[in-house]
Amino acid sequence: MLKPTRQQEEKETGRIEAFSDGVFAVAITLLVLDIKVPHAADLGSQGTLARALLLQWPQFLAYVTSFATILIMWMNHHKLFNQIRRTDHWFLLWNGLLLFGVTIVPFPTALVAEFIHRKDAALAAIIYSGTFILISVFFNLVWRYAAHKNRLLKADKDDRFVRIINRQYACGPFFYLIAFALAFTNVTASITACMALAVFFALPIAGP
Amino acid sequence: MLKPTRQQEEKETGRIEAFSDGVFAVAITLLVLDIKVPHAADLGSQGTLARALLLQWPQFLAYVTSFATILIMWMNHHKLFNQIRRTDHWFLLWNGLLLFGVTIVPFPTALVAEFIHRKDAALAAIIYSGTFILISVFFNLVWRYAAHKNRLLKADKDDRFVRIINRQYACGPFFYLIAFALAFTNVTASITACMALAVFFALPIAGP
Amino acid sequence: MLKPTRQQEEKETGRIEAFSDGVFAVAITLLVLDIKVPHAADLGSQGTLARALLLQWPQFLAYVTSFATILIMWMNHHKLFNQIRRTDHWFLLWNGLLLFGVTIVPFPTALVAEFIHRKDAALAAIIYSGTFILISVFFNLVWRYAAHKNRLLKADKDDRFVRIINRQYACGPFFYLIAFALAFTNVTASITACMALAVFFALPIAGP
Amino acid sequence: MLKPTRQQEEKETGRIEAFSDGVFAVAITLLVLDIKVPHAADLGSQGTLARALLLQWPQFLAYVTSFATILIMWMNHHKLFNQIRRTDHWFLLWNGLLLFGVTIVPFPTALVAEFIHRKDAALAAIIYSGTFILISVFFNLVWRYAAHKNRLLKADKDDRFVRIINRQYACGPFFYLIAFALAFTNVTASITACMALAVFFALPIAGP
Repeated sequence: MLKPTRQQEEKETGRIEAFSDGVFAVAITLLVLDIKVPHAADLGSQGTLARALLLQWPQFLAYVTSFATILIMWMNHHKLFNQIRRTDHWFLLWNGLLLFGVTIVPFPTALVAEFIHRKDAALAAIIYSGTFILISVFFNLVWRYAAHKNRLLKADKDDRFVRIINRQYACGPFFYLIAFALAFTNVTASITACMALAVFFALPIAGP
Repeated sequence: MLKPTRQQEEKETGRIEAFSDGVFAVAITLLVLDIKVPHAADLGSQGTLARALLLQWPQFLAYVTSFATILIMWMNHHKLFNQIRRTDHWFLLWNGLLLFGVTIVPFPTALVAEFIHRKDAALAAIIYSGTFILISVFFNLVWRYAAHKNRLLKADKDDRFVRIINRQYACGPFFYLIAFALAFTNVTASITACMALAVFFALPIAGP
Repeated sequence: MLKPTRQQEEKETGRIEAFSDGVFAVAITLLVLDIKVPHAADLGSQGTLARALLLQWPQFLAYVTSFATILIMWMNHHKLFNQIRRTDHWFLLWNGLLLFGVTIVPFPTALVAEFIHRKDAALAAIIYSGTFILISVFFNLVWRYAAHKNRLLKADKDDRFVRIINRQYACGPFFYLIAFALAFTNVTASITACMALAVFFALPIAGP
Repeated sequence: MLKPTRQQEEKETGRIEAFSDGVFAVAITLLVLDIKVPHAADLGSQGTLARALLLQWPQFLAYVTSFATILIMWMNHHKLFNQIRRTDHWFLLWNGLLLFGVTIVPFPTALVAEFIHRKDAALAAIIYSGTFILISVFFNLVWRYAAHKNRLLKADKDDRFVRIINRQYACGPFFYLIAFALAFTNVTASITACMALAVFFALPIAGP
């Protein structure tokens, strides 16, 4: 098989990025479909729009949370790919798995929004935090496959960045496992832990 | 940390543009989902299609308005990025906030379309104009972060363009604040002001 | 104002293409949302899936027609932009108008599918053909604005292609006007004329 | 007609890839809309969330299957285009047909999910496997049109890859024809065969 030139390799990486960006962009924009405008006819003679909108607060919060989560995952995906130059068959598959994780985020988020005040809140929180365990495992899969013996990394990769990512990602699944365990006893603590972890992964990578 | 080359920087800017373009493109195309085809069965024996379509006029107007608004925001985003060469962690976040503003536009627009002739029209107009205050603040955030001490701008940026944008954007939130204040007393004037401001931001940048 | 370099110009054209491609891609893929899977529970004890699917034929036909129409418009948009090198403020607006036309195609198509066998079929056909008059006017606007005195065309544009496009596009609105007039007297002839015109615009440009 | 330069040709191929990527990305992300969050109010006093989610398993399985199928088709599309340098009018059309096939995948998948345990299961499996016959014919059309006498292939194409693809694709429609025939007698075997074929096409191309 002919060895691809560097330019061809970059074109290939470009296309996997374009496809991934498309999936992230559609996923983040589809979220708005879950926010329904209250129907004037449904409000009744006593009801007011203000009250109808206040009752929708879990949907608004779910929207903001899903948007922030997918945005942060996009930022991390973007940063990883800045260190990657080549792609291969298995990498396309692992990246596909990761995108699978990204596209399902709205589902557990909506589940939590719907059941937060019900007896089934614990199950919703278990599914919510479980999804993020899965996604953090997929992020590790994509990154470790690419970084293993510099398989797909750039020659001029940022070594400090690679070290920090290695460490940060290794912790991810364990952090989310704690949130998962919390879901069985304290739903609010579990959800809060997941959100705090999103903020943690949104922090810029910088340090000594 | 290795200093990225100019080519790498442009690739990075390209990817944030591609993601943003994806979000704008999906947001502007999803709008059509809000226009429902009247069901033949629902028209009854007396009803005609013409009458059913005429009753849908607020939805058609909301569609045209949302489309125009998102298109104009895309054009402005496009123009800003023509002056930008680099990107960094915080810029990705501010741009994400701006995209958040863009994707929610259909919601307040549909709200106004639903409640324009009801007692809750004022609240709908308050939310509508309030959304645009938010978006104009986000536009300022993105632009000022990039332009501050030429942090992320091109070396060969268009200085006159930068000056005009600085001035135009500084006024944006205040103009929308007037529309917001109007919403409490005169709904039609508030909505009209918002549309006039969209036209203002759609004008080409040219002058002495 | 600094004169943009050729490379910057191509980057700008690239971004308007990317945004347009995004809109076309979303519009063509959203169509599938109109095809509903029959619910097993709704079929009743006598009903069969085969019969339920057969009753859905207008929706299937509308899907195929909308898909083909948007694909052909994308192909034409793609060909126009192969001759275009620069972009400017007004061109972004005309292109936006054209994209507006593209995104609404599913609505009149679904309208025809719903009312083809009802007394309101004529109005549906009037709206259907009327939409295509509008779109062909927008295509002319985009093309003539770019081609006027070679305003935005490449230096190495294909002169024969430009001439053929000029002629073909000039006829477009008039052809669709005939389909529009037909809608008042013969619905089937009007719809058939619109489809024949789509095929006409799908033909490769070649000749003496 | 002026002969396009190599750079122009690659730009054109780039745009057809970008449009195709957009369609794949939207199609794969729209799937999530079919997964509905159970409404707390619908569960009743006895119902639990766990039970409601378990009853949704065919929808979850359909989601995973559709996602995997579209991902695998994207990977194959990506690989084909790595060997292609030019594009022409008819190629745009054949590629459009293939994208048509891709976007409809969720429909037969949802059909199987809905009717797998009903008397109409055979018809659902016939439509499901029939769709994949169609798609494998379209993949052949795109590839053979491009590869015929190296019409649109790169000069430095990978000859071994071309030979393997030729052979693999020639078998595709016949394999799916077997799955189609199975649908008339054994629904489970037919669906399983389709899934096994998806895995077959997901394998990396390597061998003596």
